[in-house]
Amino acid sequence: MTIKPLADKVVVKVEEAEQTTASGIVLSTSAQEKPAFATVVAVGPGGVVDGEKVEMTVKVGDKVVTSKYSGTEIKLDGEEYTIVSQSDILAIVE
Amino acid sequence: MTIKPLADKVVVKVEEAEQTTASGIVLSTSAQEKPAFATVVAVGPGGVVDGEKVEMTVKVGDKVVTSKYSGTEIKLDGEEYTIVSQSDILAIVE
Amino acid sequence: MTIKPLADKVVVKVEEAEQTTASGIVLSTSAQEKPAFATVVAVGPGGVVDGEKVEMTVKVGDKVVTSKYSGTEIKLDGEEYTIVSQSDILAIVE
Amino acid sequence: MTIKPLADKVVVKVEEAEQTTASGIVLSTSAQEKPAFATVVAVGPGGVVDGEKVEMTVKVGDKVVTSKYSGTEIKLDGEEYTIVSQSDILAIVE
Amino acid sequence: MTIKPLADKVVVKVEEAEQTTASGIVLSTSAQEKPAFATVVAVGPGGVVDGEKVEMTVKVGDKVVTSKYSGTEIKLDGEEYTIVSQSDILAIVE
Amino acid sequence: MTIKPLADKVVVKVEEAEQTTASGIVLSTSAQEKPAFATVVAVGPGGVVDGEKVEMTVKVGDKVVTSKYSGTEIKLDGEEYTIVSQSDILAIVE
Amino acid sequence: MTIKPLADKVVVKVEEAEQTTASGIVLSTSAQEKPAFATVVAVGPGGVVDGEKVEMTVKVGDKVVTSKYSGTEIKLDGEEYTIVSQSDILAIVE
Repeated sequence: MTIKPLADKVVVKVEEAEQTTASGIVLSTSAQEKPAFATVVAVGPGGVVDGEKVEMTVKVGDKVVTSKYSGTEIKLDGEEYTIVSQSDILAIVE
Repeated sequence: MTIKPLADKVVVKVEEAEQTTASGIVLSTSAQEKPAFATVVAVGPGGVVDGEKVEMTVKVGDKVVTSKYSGTEIKLDGEEYTIVSQSDILAIVE
Repeated sequence: MTIKPLADKVVVKVEEAEQTTASGIVLSTSAQEKPAFATVVAVGPGGVVDGEKVEMTVKVGDKVVTSKYSGTEIKLDGEEYTIVSQSDILAIVE
Repeated sequence: MTIKPLADKVVVKVEEAEQTTASGIVLSTSAQEKPAFATVVAVGPGGVVDGEKVEMTVKVGDKVVTSKYSGTEIKLDGEEYTIVSQSDILAIVE
Repeated sequence: MTIKPLADKVVVKVEEAEQTTASGIVLSTSAQEKPAFATVVAVGPGGVVDGEKVEMTVKVGDKVVTSKYSGTEIKLDGEEYTIVSQSDILAIVE
Repeated sequence: MTIKPLADKVVVKVEEAEQTTASGIVLSTSAQEKPAFATVVAVGPGGVVDGEKVEMTVKVGDKVVTSKYSGTEIKLDGEEYTIVSQSDILAIVE
Repeated sequence: MTIKPLADKVVVKVEEAEQTTASGIVLSTSAQEKPAFATVVAVGPGGVVDGEKVEMTVKVGDKVVTSKYSGTEIKLDGEEYTIVSQSDILAIVE
């Protein structure tokens, strides 16, 4: 499978609401809360978006927090993904 | 038939909600979900749109994911098409 | 009769919902659908609109698709016309 | 009486809904339709508006079509006028 | 009393709805109509507003027409004034 | 106590609705009217805000009129203050 | 734990509604008031945001006032944090 996001788009896979990371951190988002912990699975090339040059600063494999209400959900080969703009990614969790 | 989109417009044909691609991927969008898998059938020339130079990065035949709520549906010669701005195309699926 | 659109404005005549073009294409827009097939009857000079230089790319006689909800309807000499901005024209049909 | 519009403002006098022009055209706007046939009675000097240089292209005496919902109505010396921005004028009818 | 408007702000005193000017013009705004005839009582220094250079073109004593819904009403020393942006002033009446 | 507003923010203390200034002016804002007479208690450093250079023109001690609906109310050490952007300050009263 | 905010994002920990600072100031925000006293726990690198260069002026450990309705709440390792844009931080309290 290859999904290639355009421009400043990023494809992420939303994680289960509660999980323990390698470093032992418990990540949790209640089901009714919109912000999501997610893993980056594909990153667009960046470039000019709305007339502004966008450099991509996230990379595949990053654990990220995305903002509320953002993104378009798609289902590919039975798996659910969310496509967001990089500006909807608030932080990287390590 | 010739339909020539203007500026940054792209004409796409929305695919059936579930289908299997050449590489065996099952693509599905439930009927009540707005994002669409679509095939590009015509691409505008790009150029200056709202004062910003837009380069076209999709091409005829690309399988794409378009964003929610976007596009204008038209019927041409009995077939339904959707005209979207390129910025409403989130990703290419291969 | 002379109607001279200003700036990036274009005067179009909306076609009947269903018609057959010279090349035999059946064009149809259901009555309840807003996008319209229309014929360009007058084109503004372009120039600076909202601080951006606009070049006119449609010409009198073009068969066009206009976007939903756009335009101002006027009645001139018993005939109905619609005045739209060129950016509300999505594609040319030939 | 002197009314001097500022910047890109234009003072117009809305015409009766139906009238016949010198060239015999019947102009009509039904009472419930907002776009108006109007005659320009005063034109502002143009200049920088919202940071963009605006050149005035209409002149006193022009018969114009103004867009829906635009303008501020005033009463001067018993006569009703409407003050619009030039960008709310869609076309000149001759 | 000194009230010094900042930036592109202008302090005006709204006139009675109906009055006769020196040149005999009857000015009237019905009570339920929002646009107002007003007299300029103080003018800000202009300068950069929202990143755009604004030059003040009205002066103290000007009779002006202000746009609908604009301005902040204040009471100073028993008198009511309205503070508007210069761009809310549509025309000068002489 | 030190409160240091950032960027173009200004901390003001809203005055009682009616008071007499040194020069004998009675200032009043009815309780249900939103514009406020206030005294500036701290001024941000200015700088680039939304990509525009902002110079601070009010200073500590200025009596100002702020616009309707603006500002964030905070309580510090039992006293209530409002933090506004300088662009929400309409005029200085002396 | 490491949380790395992107661009102009700042991670803050909202303080209890009432507390006494080292210098003896009682800080309070009633439960129903949205503005928050918070402590900065992580600061993004700044850079170009929406085409504008943003310099970060807050630092880890700063006590800040954030604006109403802003921010995305997350829970990390059992603790609640809020991610805001730096422009949502109104002032630093010392």
